Amino acid sequence: MVYLTRKIEFSAAHRYHNPDFSAEENRRIFGKCNYPNGHGHNYVLEVTVGGETDPATGMVLDLKELKELLEREVMDRMDHRSLNHEVAELAGRIPTCENVAAVIWELLAPKIRRGQLARVRLWESPDLYVDCYGDGGRA
Amino acid sequence: MVYLTRKIEFSAAHRYHNPDFSAEENRRIFGKCNYPNGHGHNYVLEVTVGGETDPATGMVLDLKELKELLEREVMDRMDHRSLNHEVAELAGRIPTCENVAAVIWELLAPKIRRGQLARVRLWESPDLYVDCYGDGGRA
Amino acid sequence: MVYLTRKIEFSAAHRYHNPDFSAEENRRIFGKCNYPNGHGHNYVLEVTVGGETDPATGMVLDLKELKELLEREVMDRMDHRSLNHEVAELAGRIPTCENVAAVIWELLAPKIRRGQLARVRLWESPDLYVDCYGDGGRA
Amino acid sequence: MVYLTRKIEFSAAHRYHNPDFSAEENRRIFGKCNYPNGHGHNYVLEVTVGGETDPATGMVLDLKELKELLEREVMDRMDHRSLNHEVAELAGRIPTCENVAAVIWELLAPKIRRGQLARVRLWESPDLYVDCYGDGGRA
Amino acid sequence: MVYLTRKIEFSAAHRYHNPDFSAEENRRIFGKCNYPNGHGHNYVLEVTVGGETDPATGMVLDLKELKELLEREVMDRMDHRSLNHEVAELAGRIPTCENVAAVIWELLAPKIRRGQLARVRLWESPDLYVDCYGDGGRA
Amino acid sequence: MVYLTRKIEFSAAHRYHNPDFSAEENRRIFGKCNYPNGHGHNYVLEVTVGGETDPATGMVLDLKELKELLEREVMDRMDHRSLNHEVAELAGRIPTCENVAAVIWELLAPKIRRGQLARVRLWESPDLYVDCYGDGGRA
Repeated sequence: MVYLTRKIEFSAAHRYHNPDFSAEENRRIFGKCNYPNGHGHNYVLEVTVGGETDPATGMVLDLKELKELLEREVMDRMDHRSLNHEVAELAGRIPTCENVAAVIWELLAPKIRRGQLARVRLWESPDLYVDCYGDGGRA
Repeated sequence: MVYLTRKIEFSAAHRYHNPDFSAEENRRIFGKCNYPNGHGHNYVLEVTVGGETDPATGMVLDLKELKELLEREVMDRMDHRSLNHEVAELAGRIPTCENVAAVIWELLAPKIRRGQLARVRLWESPDLYVDCYGDGGRA
Repeated sequence: MVYLTRKIEFSAAHRYHNPDFSAEENRRIFGKCNYPNGHGHNYVLEVTVGGETDPATGMVLDLKELKELLEREVMDRMDHRSLNHEVAELAGRIPTCENVAAVIWELLAPKIRRGQLARVRLWESPDLYVDCYGDGGRA
Repeated sequence: MVYLTRKIEFSAAHRYHNPDFSAEENRRIFGKCNYPNGHGHNYVLEVTVGGETDPATGMVLDLKELKELLEREVMDRMDHRSLNHEVAELAGRIPTCENVAAVIWELLAPKIRRGQLARVRLWESPDLYVDCYGDGGRA
Repeated sequence: MVYLTRKIEFSAAHRYHNPDFSAEENRRIFGKCNYPNGHGHNYVLEVTVGGETDPATGMVLDLKELKELLEREVMDRMDHRSLNHEVAELAGRIPTCENVAAVIWELLAPKIRRGQLARVRLWESPDLYVDCYGDGGRA
Repeated sequence: MVYLTRKIEFSAAHRYHNPDFSAEENRRIFGKCNYPNGHGHNYVLEVTVGGETDPATGMVLDLKELKELLEREVMDRMDHRSLNHEVAELAGRIPTCENVAAVIWELLAPKIRRGQLARVRLWESPDLYVDCYGDGGRA
């Protein structure tokens, strides 16, 4: 069993704001991330799929197929978009790195056809990233 | 004469839209950058100052002073902001990497007290950056 | 359950020398790291905390709180310091990457208030790093 | 128990071609990787060894010994080589990142004398890597 | 005047061999790069264009146009190719980083339609790169 | 004319202290860099040589020769050393990035046998570097 990881990048805007909090709470809890007009990031996404290597191709999965899946499910949905206003799966959720990574996991896991999704790692900046794992827990 | 470069990072949102263009022209010229809700980036800024090394300190300039200048002129103005709505110096200009770098040059050049601003390099993503030079021209 | 990782950097000096070894043994075992005046590194520290995402904030933990913890426990103790002479927790231990990472684990683990420390990764240089895990073992 | 990771780099050429496939199948399945004269990469290899820290040295293993092992088993065998024509262990296998990583695992695992090989990570490019683990499975 | 730089990556194989040298000379001068089956790299190309920013678009040049030019002139010609056997412009020249960068300069310079080619930087590995400039000389 | 750049890395310790300053001045001017036991860095050095490409080899210079020069003049002198106590050329000078880069320039410039030293770039950390040029001035 081997694990293959593909990295892609997308750019998006977001703002942290919970309508159930007061203005003061929003500012205290979310700091600069609550500024009214939002800001944005170059997100880096690492998608890891585990499986057996096919002896005929030497591959765990078809990279072209994975590329098309990431294009369709992640790039078309999130690249150059506002995560607050344009991503239906994030409606009603604060678009933190934790929640965006979880949504990407939910979008990809059922659509991997060879092998299994093993990890989604999402970098919001060069010094912050979040990992989601299939079984809910390992670092 | 030596050149010292300091790198900082900030996150901001932007959208490309020229009100003098038709909707169709905006979309054709700016592509995804014209999406109505904007997107954003982790900008990386490299500021280069040239000067003589002071024999008593071994330094071209006081790094603490440079750090405070960048904090005040760039971070406070642009970090976690919308470049379209919250940066007065960009009003009426498309917030492209070219224009943001030029504004940063204009903000910093007159305020360097030891040495001279020699280059402003602004990375919009890991595969795109813009350089401004004092004399208007070298790579 | 998701895992959030924060990266910080600090600079420190160290020297490898075991007083129980002869001069010849110290040189043979530690090589250049035994040079009498020491050397140093830009250490990069990645701290991973695992936990449930709070639906109200979208966050596993309060990043400001984590930042303050890292500032207090790691930066104030180790940044611009000699790991041999100024870090009490390393007294009597060779300040290798293994031991420094273990000390950071011991300092941070009991002080994480939401979620649990899941991994400490310490880079001594771009081609060498060490991982500590809570349960003593996974890569 | 701690895990130490060493990173090295080598350059090699390869081509994907399965003689049991038709020319058309080879092109469809392998795309550009099937071009007749091959291409190449700067491979980055991360080798992780887990073990107990020796209190006398502060080390999980002897880094000089690990360096020599990597030099002998990986660099001498693969650096500046054609993976199709010059690496005996890959004979009859498509030299994909999956297969090269597996061969490196097989070469190194029995020769680690202190601690145990815990992971082999092989980067074929900055956006693609493969992990092999000793027990056949974790991300 | 500002300078915009775009970075792309391609993978290629090469071998250094001068038919006018003896076998011994080839090995002594080119070392591992003379191994008979060649090796390869992930090349990183940075293309810099200087020009005036168009006030209507905020841009020095049309990035889509630049991307298409790089796709056509560099990627189609060199990506996943053998630089010795498949790039006509390199026929009769040792495919060193110096010569590949010079060929890329010659291919691109006459086809930049807005602004001027100012620099071609070609990385052969993370620790080696070559720069070509229009006027034949500056670092 | 082309410019070739080679990157190497070394680790060293340093401390900023001017004996002509009072203790209070040293602390105010140098901050953490004045801590009594020093600290250290992974320095990254980029050495750029400009010249004509030799048609017989395709090279500006002999990379093996450059590597040996850097080994002898920089690595042997500075790697794993204290820049305050073990580098004769820095005696009496504060070992700032500016001064270390200048010393490296002085050491290398007269010993380049093909082409000319064009730039010495020294990174003290991922967000700070210094450039020296032969003619005393360009960014």
